[in-house]
Amino acid sequence: MYIKEGVSVSEGISKAVVKRLPRYYRYLGELQSAGVERISSGELSQQMKVTASQIRQDLNNFGGFGQQGYGYNVEYLRNEIAKILGLNKLHNIIIVGAGHLGRALANYANFEKNSFRVIGMFDINPELAGQNVRDIPVMHNDELPEFLRNNDVEIAALTLPKTNAIAMAEILVENGIHAIWNFAHTDLNLIVPNDVVVENVHLSESLMRLSYNLKVLEEKNMI
Amino acid sequence: MYIKEGVSVSEGISKAVVKRLPRYYRYLGELQSAGVERISSGELSQQMKVTASQIRQDLNNFGGFGQQGYGYNVEYLRNEIAKILGLNKLHNIIIVGAGHLGRALANYANFEKNSFRVIGMFDINPELAGQNVRDIPVMHNDELPEFLRNNDVEIAALTLPKTNAIAMAEILVENGIHAIWNFAHTDLNLIVPNDVVVENVHLSESLMRLSYNLKVLEEKNMI
Repeated sequence: MYIKEGVSVSEGISKAVVKRLPRYYRYLGELQSAGVERISSGELSQQMKVTASQIRQDLNNFGGFGQQGYGYNVEYLRNEIAKILGLNKLHNIIIVGAGHLGRALANYANFEKNSFRVIGMFDINPELAGQNVRDIPVMHNDELPEFLRNNDVEIAALTLPKTNAIAMAEILVENGIHAIWNFAHTDLNLIVPNDVVVENVHLSESLMRLSYNLKVLEEKNMI
Repeated sequence: MYIKEGVSVSEGISKAVVKRLPRYYRYLGELQSAGVERISSGELSQQMKVTASQIRQDLNNFGGFGQQGYGYNVEYLRNEIAKILGLNKLHNIIIVGAGHLGRALANYANFEKNSFRVIGMFDINPELAGQNVRDIPVMHNDELPEFLRNNDVEIAALTLPKTNAIAMAEILVENGIHAIWNFAHTDLNLIVPNDVVVENVHLSESLMRLSYNLKVLEEKNMI
């Protein structure tokens, strides 16, 4: 990515494209694992079930890495997308809430070992403090501010009930966290300052969309 | 919702509106819990941080439940949205994969007690069979087809590694499942028949978008 007159190119990328980039990244990773070195937009289109023109248009946002008659170099394209997504550096993560969801994420968030690393978990329950989840220490919430002072933590995952999530988000922001991965059933993005990004994962909303789509099938007498 | 010339109104609802409906449902539920009986589109707009005209436009898709000068009746509107989302009936759910994520969902999916109920969990590990998660029995995967024959299951949540998810989705579809809540790192919607709906929850993609947005903050020198 290049800087033009002090403005990063990424500012010009639409939300919709950003939303699709991780999927490109995943497919390119699968191709790479399968030993594929280059791919045309047509072939990628078939696999991902999006139009080839959509793919070309999306990837043109970054100067376009394809060459006429050659297609895309899989490894190069994947690396470029990694840089755009900020995956070319390691982000330390803490997880606040050491219940099942927090533990699932502790396993899950290590999926890109060079990009994300969970270095601590926190819980309000004093009985959990001192335990380990994989190699990750579980600490009491009281230890959180000191931990954040002593460690370079960029991302905090919040796997807490909604009632506790807002107060915890405020503590995290006060202690220098700028990225919150929020699983609580509330829109934290509406309450944090401008220099904090939030990604809400509302599982219940996803389940409701599934219920809606099932109902549509029924109404069409398809099932 | 009414039927007009054999076509349900819901067919005319855009994906974008469907995506927003669960959020309306959540805010209306909070208002109801707080004892609020009616609300104007302007007030709702302030709380949800979307424009009042967006709210009116969204809700007009369903004939519009608001009245000039009165606003929306909170309970009525919430009930109507519930019907649209198919939440006015009970959906039985099974969870395939009894690891941490499956257990987290077992607690989570009961959040709307009148709409969703987890009635069984399945795992490939024979040591888990016979256990209970809350009151939900854990069974071996081998017992799945018989369980589906004997119980009215509408939704299957898949909390499995990607490598096992595709084969399991095929088994579920063969045994009459038409709705899959997929947490595996693969796009199951591309492989199931037309009469099966899939809602993919790709947590890694959500984490990557957070990483991207954090990088944009850094590029803007905001942090």
